[in-house]
Amino acid sequence: MDNEKFVIVGEDALKTFCRAMFIAVGVPDDEAILIVDNLVEADLRAVASHGVVRLPIYIQRIEDGGSNPRPQPRILRQTRTTAVLDGDNGMGQIVGIRAMEIALEKASDGDCAFVSVRNSNHYGAASHYAEMAARHDMIGLSFTIGGINHMTPWGGAEAILGNNPFAFAFPTRDGFPVVLDMACSVAARGKIIVAAKDGTPIPSDWASGPDGAPTTDPVEALKGFVLPVGGPKGYALTLGIGLLSTMLSGAYFGSEVTHMYEQTTTPQNVGHLFGVLPISAFEDLDHYYARMSKALADIQGTRKAPGVERIYLPGEREHLALLERRERGIPLNAAVFDELNELGAKYGLSLG
Amino acid sequence: MDNEKFVIVGEDALKTFCRAMFIAVGVPDDEAILIVDNLVEADLRAVASHGVVRLPIYIQRIEDGGSNPRPQPRILRQTRTTAVLDGDNGMGQIVGIRAMEIALEKASDGDCAFVSVRNSNHYGAASHYAEMAARHDMIGLSFTIGGINHMTPWGGAEAILGNNPFAFAFPTRDGFPVVLDMACSVAARGKIIVAAKDGTPIPSDWASGPDGAPTTDPVEALKGFVLPVGGPKGYALTLGIGLLSTMLSGAYFGSEVTHMYEQTTTPQNVGHLFGVLPISAFEDLDHYYARMSKALADIQGTRKAPGVERIYLPGEREHLALLERRERGIPLNAAVFDELNELGAKYGLSLG
Repeated sequence: MDNEKFVIVGEDALKTFCRAMFIAVGVPDDEAILIVDNLVEADLRAVASHGVVRLPIYIQRIEDGGSNPRPQPRILRQTRTTAVLDGDNGMGQIVGIRAMEIALEKASDGDCAFVSVRNSNHYGAASHYAEMAARHDMIGLSFTIGGINHMTPWGGAEAILGNNPFAFAFPTRDGFPVVLDMACSVAARGKIIVAAKDGTPIPSDWASGPDGAPTTDPVEALKGFVLPVGGPKGYALTLGIGLLSTMLSGAYFGSEVTHMYEQTTTPQNVGHLFGVLPISAFEDLDHYYARMSKALADIQGTRKAPGVERIYLPGEREHLALLERRERGIPLNAAVFDELNELGAKYGLSLG
Repeated sequence: MDNEKFVIVGEDALKTFCRAMFIAVGVPDDEAILIVDNLVEADLRAVASHGVVRLPIYIQRIEDGGSNPRPQPRILRQTRTTAVLDGDNGMGQIVGIRAMEIALEKASDGDCAFVSVRNSNHYGAASHYAEMAARHDMIGLSFTIGGINHMTPWGGAEAILGNNPFAFAFPTRDGFPVVLDMACSVAARGKIIVAAKDGTPIPSDWASGPDGAPTTDPVEALKGFVLPVGGPKGYALTLGIGLLSTMLSGAYFGSEVTHMYEQTTTPQNVGHLFGVLPISAFEDLDHYYARMSKALADIQGTRKAPGVERIYLPGEREHLALLERRERGIPLNAAVFDELNELGAKYGLSLG
């Protein structure tokens, strides 16, 4: 595995390259900026799984007609505090940002607001949208259905569920929001790929083989399914997030879901759900922020287990990585670096 | 352990006894009915942890002044679509039902609505409130902070977080709603108590000892902390649910939380958050129900792993238990049965 080889790339250079790539396949400049900000932000936050590693598939899906580079999202239905947005098969980042902007507008008079989305695509890190709300003194909620069915219901042996992600963001006055952002599997599939390459067994709670029985053989696991956190709990959770993300908009769910990487000519009709809770509707803002500061200081000041140097808040490691990488550059996996350059060469573009 | 000894008790007999108990300690008759419906519903649904096993502590907290048997909940603040309810230290069931009713009223014109709660108490099963919304063609969300700090932040060794529960309910036309209802630990503390009594080791991901290091010794585990599902994921989740349940209402969080069982004279200032999403604001109801039916049939029809007889939907096992127990009675743990009778004797009441 190339995990240990990295090339350091500056934020600006990476953004310039990626932006040119999206423009080359027909994405308008202002929208390319939004997509690239989302991808590179994930790399800055050390969430490489949702960073520029996704650029090749995004570009391929646009080239193959699976995603629309120039979407015209439109509101299909709305009330004072809800809306359904049709993303016109645009990039998930463009559609997701538009949907969250609608939610923020609807919440500006002290209402909670929810916007559901259909006809979208993979939207990158779920946290990105929840954090938009946090910048407006609101709690942000972000749910999406995954772009590949990697999971099976508890007791099943058929990939009919996504490893569906969600994020909650809570604003603070202490430098960074508290951000939960997670999917529902015990381990990312990428870790099983690493184990398969290394020929090492995997823990028995990571995956089941194609027959649905748990396995420690990573090769069997890759033919099978990733297992949910807490067994039936994670199954219920990924099902619930999937239903929230699709049943309020007509987006695809379950057997309707196509494979993001293998069916690149087919629009995926991805669904999301975004929610905002304006804090001032519930609490004096100053009181909320003071209570949050106290609560988070309590957490950070918790007595530590042996060998633990620091208690982190959700989102804190990512924030610290971002501060460091803005300054020192992003250590990009060398294989990803090479892949980007190879792809760029098709368009006369180079990352360095 | 008395787990294997059961006494079969009819639903009506159990409700009559419990209702008389609450009336005996000063709860108004109509409110006693609501509390008892909630508790006995959990036993009917085979969720014994949230059933009448809680009656003794509920009664004791009322007797000791820790909970108010005759609360006057009042709205502290509201917008068109949000409210903050002060529960006047009433039983969580009374306060929670009132809060969800307010949310349903506010959502009746096609708005989403959220109601936060302070000065409440343990509210029983989180699903109860989410299901209220499902009966009105709405998706219901229910969050609460736990009444005891049993968890530590990831890497910590101090009980500063609750094992916080939440529930989502999705209405269906197929006999029962899809209901997720879970807390954030790998295993319930009750299972560790059983292992300690039996003298058998526990899996290493269930609990950490008092120093915060994982342990397979159930006795050490009971001095320590239950571990979160998925490690840092479950930590982030229980923290997020805790913040949702308290930071929008002024309810207690973290180091402010007292022990439901050990500090029975102290009001707990428990917080909840309830949300409703009216489906018709987003989708034609018929279309939603048809899509749900298809999605759930797909899940239930998934190819099965070896030895699996049936794929269950979240909430399905509970629904089947309820149907059976309504007919045949509730198998009540014999120790709980004895404890209820012992307590009842103080008030001249007997369960049978």
